[in-house]
Amino acid sequence: MTDAATNMRLKLPITCFILQIILIILFGTMVQYNTDTDAAAWHNQTLPDYENDFYYRYASFQDVHVMIFIGFGFLMTFLQKYGFSSVGFNFLIAAFALQWATLMQGFLHGMHHGKIHIGVESMINADFCTGAVLISFGAVLGKTSPVQLLIMAMFEVTLFAVNEYVVLTVLGAKDAGGSMTIHTFGAYFGLMVTRVLYRPNLDKSKHRNSSVYHSDLFAMIGTLYLWMFWPSFNSAVTAHGDDQHRTAMNTYYSLAACTLSSYAMSALTAHDGKLDMVHIQNAALAGGVAAGTAGEMMLTPFGSMIVGFLAGIISVLGFKYLSPVLEDKLKIQDTCGVHNLHGMPGILGAIVGAVTAACATMEIYGKGMVDVFPAVADGSFTASVQGVRQAISLAVTLGIALLGGLIVGFILKLPLFGTPPDSICFEDSIYWEVPGEEPSHEEQLTVVRTEETEKLNN
Amino acid sequence: MTDAATNMRLKLPITCFILQIILIILFGTMVQYNTDTDAAAWHNQTLPDYENDFYYRYASFQDVHVMIFIGFGFLMTFLQKYGFSSVGFNFLIAAFALQWATLMQGFLHGMHHGKIHIGVESMINADFCTGAVLISFGAVLGKTSPVQLLIMAMFEVTLFAVNEYVVLTVLGAKDAGGSMTIHTFGAYFGLMVTRVLYRPNLDKSKHRNSSVYHSDLFAMIGTLYLWMFWPSFNSAVTAHGDDQHRTAMNTYYSLAACTLSSYAMSALTAHDGKLDMVHIQNAALAGGVAAGTAGEMMLTPFGSMIVGFLAGIISVLGFKYLSPVLEDKLKIQDTCGVHNLHGMPGILGAIVGAVTAACATMEIYGKGMVDVFPAVADGSFTASVQGVRQAISLAVTLGIALLGGLIVGFILKLPLFGTPPDSICFEDSIYWEVPGEEPSHEEQLTVVRTEETEKLNN
Amino acid sequence: MTDAATNMRLKLPITCFILQIILIILFGTMVQYNTDTDAAAWHNQTLPDYENDFYYRYASFQDVHVMIFIGFGFLMTFLQKYGFSSVGFNFLIAAFALQWATLMQGFLHGMHHGKIHIGVESMINADFCTGAVLISFGAVLGKTSPVQLLIMAMFEVTLFAVNEYVVLTVLGAKDAGGSMTIHTFGAYFGLMVTRVLYRPNLDKSKHRNSSVYHSDLFAMIGTLYLWMFWPSFNSAVTAHGDDQHRTAMNTYYSLAACTLSSYAMSALTAHDGKLDMVHIQNAALAGGVAAGTAGEMMLTPFGSMIVGFLAGIISVLGFKYLSPVLEDKLKIQDTCGVHNLHGMPGILGAIVGAVTAACATMEIYGKGMVDVFPAVADGSFTASVQGVRQAISLAVTLGIALLGGLIVGFILKLPLFGTPPDSICFEDSIYWEVPGEEPSHEEQLTVVRTEETEKLNN
Repeated sequence: MTDAATNMRLKLPITCFILQIILIILFGTMVQYNTDTDAAAWHNQTLPDYENDFYYRYASFQDVHVMIFIGFGFLMTFLQKYGFSSVGFNFLIAAFALQWATLMQGFLHGMHHGKIHIGVESMINADFCTGAVLISFGAVLGKTSPVQLLIMAMFEVTLFAVNEYVVLTVLGAKDAGGSMTIHTFGAYFGLMVTRVLYRPNLDKSKHRNSSVYHSDLFAMIGTLYLWMFWPSFNSAVTAHGDDQHRTAMNTYYSLAACTLSSYAMSALTAHDGKLDMVHIQNAALAGGVAAGTAGEMMLTPFGSMIVGFLAGIISVLGFKYLSPVLEDKLKIQDTCGVHNLHGMPGILGAIVGAVTAACATMEIYGKGMVDVFPAVADGSFTASVQGVRQAISLAVTLGIALLGGLIVGFILKLPLFGTPPDSICFEDSIYWEVPGEEPSHEEQLTVVRTEETEKLNN
Repeated sequence: MTDAATNMRLKLPITCFILQIILIILFGTMVQYNTDTDAAAWHNQTLPDYENDFYYRYASFQDVHVMIFIGFGFLMTFLQKYGFSSVGFNFLIAAFALQWATLMQGFLHGMHHGKIHIGVESMINADFCTGAVLISFGAVLGKTSPVQLLIMAMFEVTLFAVNEYVVLTVLGAKDAGGSMTIHTFGAYFGLMVTRVLYRPNLDKSKHRNSSVYHSDLFAMIGTLYLWMFWPSFNSAVTAHGDDQHRTAMNTYYSLAACTLSSYAMSALTAHDGKLDMVHIQNAALAGGVAAGTAGEMMLTPFGSMIVGFLAGIISVLGFKYLSPVLEDKLKIQDTCGVHNLHGMPGILGAIVGAVTAACATMEIYGKGMVDVFPAVADGSFTASVQGVRQAISLAVTLGIALLGGLIVGFILKLPLFGTPPDSICFEDSIYWEVPGEEPSHEEQLTVVRTEETEKLNN
Repeated sequence: MTDAATNMRLKLPITCFILQIILIILFGTMVQYNTDTDAAAWHNQTLPDYENDFYYRYASFQDVHVMIFIGFGFLMTFLQKYGFSSVGFNFLIAAFALQWATLMQGFLHGMHHGKIHIGVESMINADFCTGAVLISFGAVLGKTSPVQLLIMAMFEVTLFAVNEYVVLTVLGAKDAGGSMTIHTFGAYFGLMVTRVLYRPNLDKSKHRNSSVYHSDLFAMIGTLYLWMFWPSFNSAVTAHGDDQHRTAMNTYYSLAACTLSSYAMSALTAHDGKLDMVHIQNAALAGGVAAGTAGEMMLTPFGSMIVGFLAGIISVLGFKYLSPVLEDKLKIQDTCGVHNLHGMPGILGAIVGAVTAACATMEIYGKGMVDVFPAVADGSFTASVQGVRQAISLAVTLGIALLGGLIVGFILKLPLFGTPPDSICFEDSIYWEVPGEEPSHEEQLTVVRTEETEKLNN
């Protein structure tokens, strides 16, 4: 039974090949270089090379890319026996999702004469969408097969693009760093999926659902890259000039304040006054999430620090007091605690964004209003309406995420996608050839003997 | 007793909350966006977006940021049982110091009409100041509580800003990469603190003051990020154009030459002709420190390589022969050997800077003199005087660092900050919930049994 | 005997010192700042600061730099007892090679009035050349002393520069990301060296020629940095503007497609349907190699994805079926399987480049033809001839690599360079002071006792 369910010999290759071939065909028929990447088109206009969007955004793109593959990948290696899967499935589903997102986002808001035009900005947006999938991955970590994850990614990317279209295009909300579209969406989608996939006997794998010393250090690599590059994440697709600059700086101060409040709350709440690595690895990042909507606005460093400070407190409290309740009462088994890192801080960020937007005045923004709130600048609606639309966007995002997660959760229950039994969750060896933890005793003896021989030879 | 001294349940939260709330209040009253980050101000002037300082400096900032959080953090994970504290306290005190530094540096040289104006350059300078604190952290690593570290950071940042003001503004010295202001200052400050905190019975923790195989590999992550991004560090705040470009290149060659001399000296001096990881992890970086002052000058790649070559030699000799003497005779217990990586190479860098400055001519610098030595270019003083002022700056830096370290060391002895007993230094478990090193034997048996079951099922 | 052969006390220092002193002397006599790095020269012309090549290429340079030192270094840490040497010798030979490459590439294609002019582009090219050396290092990993590696690097860099000169300058081929000049050259050179150094009794060290759990996670750090930054690698020296932008994007899609096909093939071919870390760590990168020549051309994302898709398949098949044959029949002991990651995908990339070049038309490239195929744009030859010259370049590269590897292999057999015996290959402890794998049992008992004491004190 175990074998039938989790053996990936045919399921995984077939899924990967089908998905990749569909992607190639759709790219061949639908996708074109945009003006900044096409040799003929770029040279047909008169902008100097330094005005190519590459030089405005590529460094940010690479920082985001590192967050997606190293940041998310290593953050999840904290589990003692699931490091290969954490970093390896993160790699696989991200590589798929960024291609699929290019198409889905292109269909919905990147079409030019029937073709999807792509460049560095679409690459960043594809990575953003991938981020939402990886957040959901964090909720189901250790309990899903790679085929389930690919199927989840396919549906989630599609729904992400729909939600993004509604929020950004229909409602005209701003959400540069994705407090709503990425974090809230990814978290609540994933929480609903893990709710549907509830495993009553997961405690059979409980002994593996924890860290060892070195796995926590690997996870800190992920944490720190996410923390350091979050300013690039939030600013990557904001308008050129002061907007990118301001967004990065707001996020930097939000994160710094969040780190201090996370350490404080960890020592205050954890057993015996000792710090808990789970809090440090996660809560210290909540400041980046919470600055995702308002970061590009004139939030000020002062405002950013307050937001980050609160986000750290909320996040640690969530890990300590809310997660056990969610698991016991609502049957939500949230492996990485994405509700505490992405869910609640994402909602906080959305609310802060709505309030900050509602307070926008021409006095504060000047001619820069066009970049931050174009609809307010051109008189389409007032700042208050912008604030209301931001708030509605949060509700829409929660609705689509929860409903989408519900449906996709049931799809993932189909037996053909394979899923590990309750007793072998959080375990690499069902998907990977896993070597031993240590050189064998025999080997260590060999080394000792070799060294002794060497000494004799001296 | 142990418990009373090191339990952080109240001390750490109270310290973090007080510091962070003070920071938020001061930011609220004192700090403003600068022209490049303010929506109205940026759009009120006529510079094109690509002239925003963000595009000149943000990539450098992110490299520096990685050095501070990953570089310093992981460099110190070499200790076998102190990885959580190394990377975790590094994270905490850096997040605090960068906020405090924004204020202190702003008070002393960033005020405009009573407000501190901030942007990417102030973010880099705050990270630089944080670097000095982390150097001092390296000297006291394993022997101080996180509360002591935060208090040390508070005072050190303040003194750093004072010294920086005297050296750069009053004396008009140049020190782009901070051979003096960052490395010499941080090292001698930390050495004096560790001298004052001398522990006669530290050998009770000796068995923990060493590495294991994997901890040395984690440390190499820190080393390599510092090494790779040092060119960005030294060039991050130099003038736009040739200055940033030249500084990065000089540093690159200094580091390359330093690496070869470090390996050579390590094999030459270490036991049995074998390389010592301590040398590789540290001495190979001395070339970056030593190019910190002269890197922006017309040092030439040739000159840079000589400087790096010497720095590597000095640094390995320091680890091998000087550190034991400092510990035995002067009672300076320098955990990471910061004297060898930052202290002596910093002094070397200051001297090289003074000599290079004294040799500056209009023939070599042309109109570029304005960027590198503005006071020489406008005739305020001759190149020789510039050289003398550079040398005086070294003396001032050493004086402020040693005196400051002395005072702060005594402050840190106050019992209320908590400090670990001599027998439990270099030990994570007094501050952190520490999981085991390995999956338990029981767990490993479970896996084996699971695998056997699987085989039977095939 | 062991000792005589591998003791590095004098051999390594002498080699390092001689090489570094020669480098310093040659830099002193031959090397100058270029216009973009020289204070006087830069200010003597009228370009604005943002036109300095630093801002076009430095971020790409740093990404390439990370690939060289972290990417290659950690990719090779998969061996259980050779992590220090993998990352440490990688560091040493790269630091040497980049200096030597600056000179060799300068002699052959960077001379101005008898001097070598350097700046960020020469730094990138030096790192590229270093990349080829590190590929060859992967083939001989674990079986060569650091002195042998330095000697190999010296010769290989020289031959690399000759080949690069013939391919790019004489033949006028394009190879921005080095499918031919870097990957094919480095792989076949290394394979020939390892063939000449064939060890019939290497199975005596077989138990060490494998990974442990944590070493595979360290290797994934290398893999992911190579994967993420490969777009920067391929685009680092292409023309400003659309060319850099397009190359990065083509590579991004090639890698994404390659990742899916690698996972698919790994599950399909590996034992029991389980994924093999060797495939994931290596084959998923083949898409970057294969897009190295055509990446800057109008390959389209569609074309890039097909190339990456094929590269992943070829690479996994190579690991699974070809490597054992190469070892048994041709006596090529390729430790890292560079033939599968760099050799075959490099050849694929060269062929794709030749075909794509031959298909170039003015309709597709417009005025951008000047950047991509200057000889076709100015009418020196047709696109078909460009394609033929690309193909000839592949043959030339293979010839020089194989012949060079043959000669250098025999040079490396000279006993004076030292080499480990067959029974102690893949073993750090012959070159490094190696600490234990774990805190000693005694130490662990101490911690337990300490914790118990603490509990009693509560």
